[in-house]
Amino acid sequence: MLKLYYAAGTCALASHIALEEAGARFETVRIDFKANGQRAPEFLAINPKGRVPALVTDQGILTETPALLVYIAQAFPDAALAPLDNPFELARVQAFNSYLCSTVHIAHAHRMRGYRWADDPQALKEMQRKVPQSVAECFDLIEKAMFEGPWVMGEAYTICDPYLFTLAQFLEGDGVDPSRFPKVLDFRNRMAARPAVKRALAVELG
Amino acid sequence: MLKLYYAAGTCALASHIALEEAGARFETVRIDFKANGQRAPEFLAINPKGRVPALVTDQGILTETPALLVYIAQAFPDAALAPLDNPFELARVQAFNSYLCSTVHIAHAHRMRGYRWADDPQALKEMQRKVPQSVAECFDLIEKAMFEGPWVMGEAYTICDPYLFTLAQFLEGDGVDPSRFPKVLDFRNRMAARPAVKRALAVELG
Repeated sequence: MLKLYYAAGTCALASHIALEEAGARFETVRIDFKANGQRAPEFLAINPKGRVPALVTDQGILTETPALLVYIAQAFPDAALAPLDNPFELARVQAFNSYLCSTVHIAHAHRMRGYRWADDPQALKEMQRKVPQSVAECFDLIEKAMFEGPWVMGEAYTICDPYLFTLAQFLEGDGVDPSRFPKVLDFRNRMAARPAVKRALAVELG
Repeated sequence: MLKLYYAAGTCALASHIALEEAGARFETVRIDFKANGQRAPEFLAINPKGRVPALVTDQGILTETPALLVYIAQAFPDAALAPLDNPFELARVQAFNSYLCSTVHIAHAHRMRGYRWADDPQALKEMQRKVPQSVAECFDLIEKAMFEGPWVMGEAYTICDPYLFTLAQFLEGDGVDPSRFPKVLDFRNRMAARPAVKRALAVELG
């Protein structure tokens, strides 16, 4: 059976939701970031990067949210979570998720994980100071140029939606008022009402 | 015909090499970063993110290196640049490329693009100071835990290879001695000898 390693309040929620949407049979293993569980030897044996999510499959272990999402879409084709038959449309899905992981999530990460890129406490504060601006710029672009509606890619619900929902959960914490992005805010509310999202959040908050 | 927007010395080289490896017919358009060409209105109309690469196809425009790479692999299946028939192996390819874009490239970007995450000049210097360490940590993990050899994914040359080659080009500039990573260094030398890589580099340096 699939086994998802996650930590509460992290981007692992995106894969968790996608597994629920896919109707997958899976179990979850919670990693406690506050106890530094991501650096424990037993978890580093699962993912030497010391990050979540990690997905244990019958064939081996997968990491990195965009890879897990497209794997879930391919492993459960009946759920129709990605345009698997159209290389161009699938590449658009991957491009959106790549933007989320390499730009949006990175902007957010400068609030709590600045130590990855600087040691000086004053520099870490300077990074934190810019997070509301850099995160808002990302969501401004999503709102104006990327989000098609009613879902990220238009009429079809895809693996972009759990991922955007997950990062949009961080807006208030990042000092960004979500009402600046009415389309994203409406999307976030509709996502929160989906049974799959409720089930994943119930586990994370449980 | 496909049209690749690139800038010299950027991660667009990965897609450029992949197009050459695929035997694609394509043209290239150089964006001059020194003249801030990525912020010019005519380029922002192509890619509102103001970044390279961007690939113009008959169906529309694609951005983000991991998405371009998997699109090229799918559009030119005879080149066998990805394990398209195996969702797990394809997800491993995507996981590696996702690590490159969201961790390795980001570590590197703190040398020249720190202004994305802080404004204070002292903070930018602190970021630059840590780049040799953070980039080396990434390549250490690649060398010890990810690179299978002779190519990234083992016996088969894939879309991971042009991307790793591209980021490995930045090592010296990032203050990292590549001889610390003998497998990656040997890989870089073998990549540089490939005709497709020579052709792409000749255009970029031309």
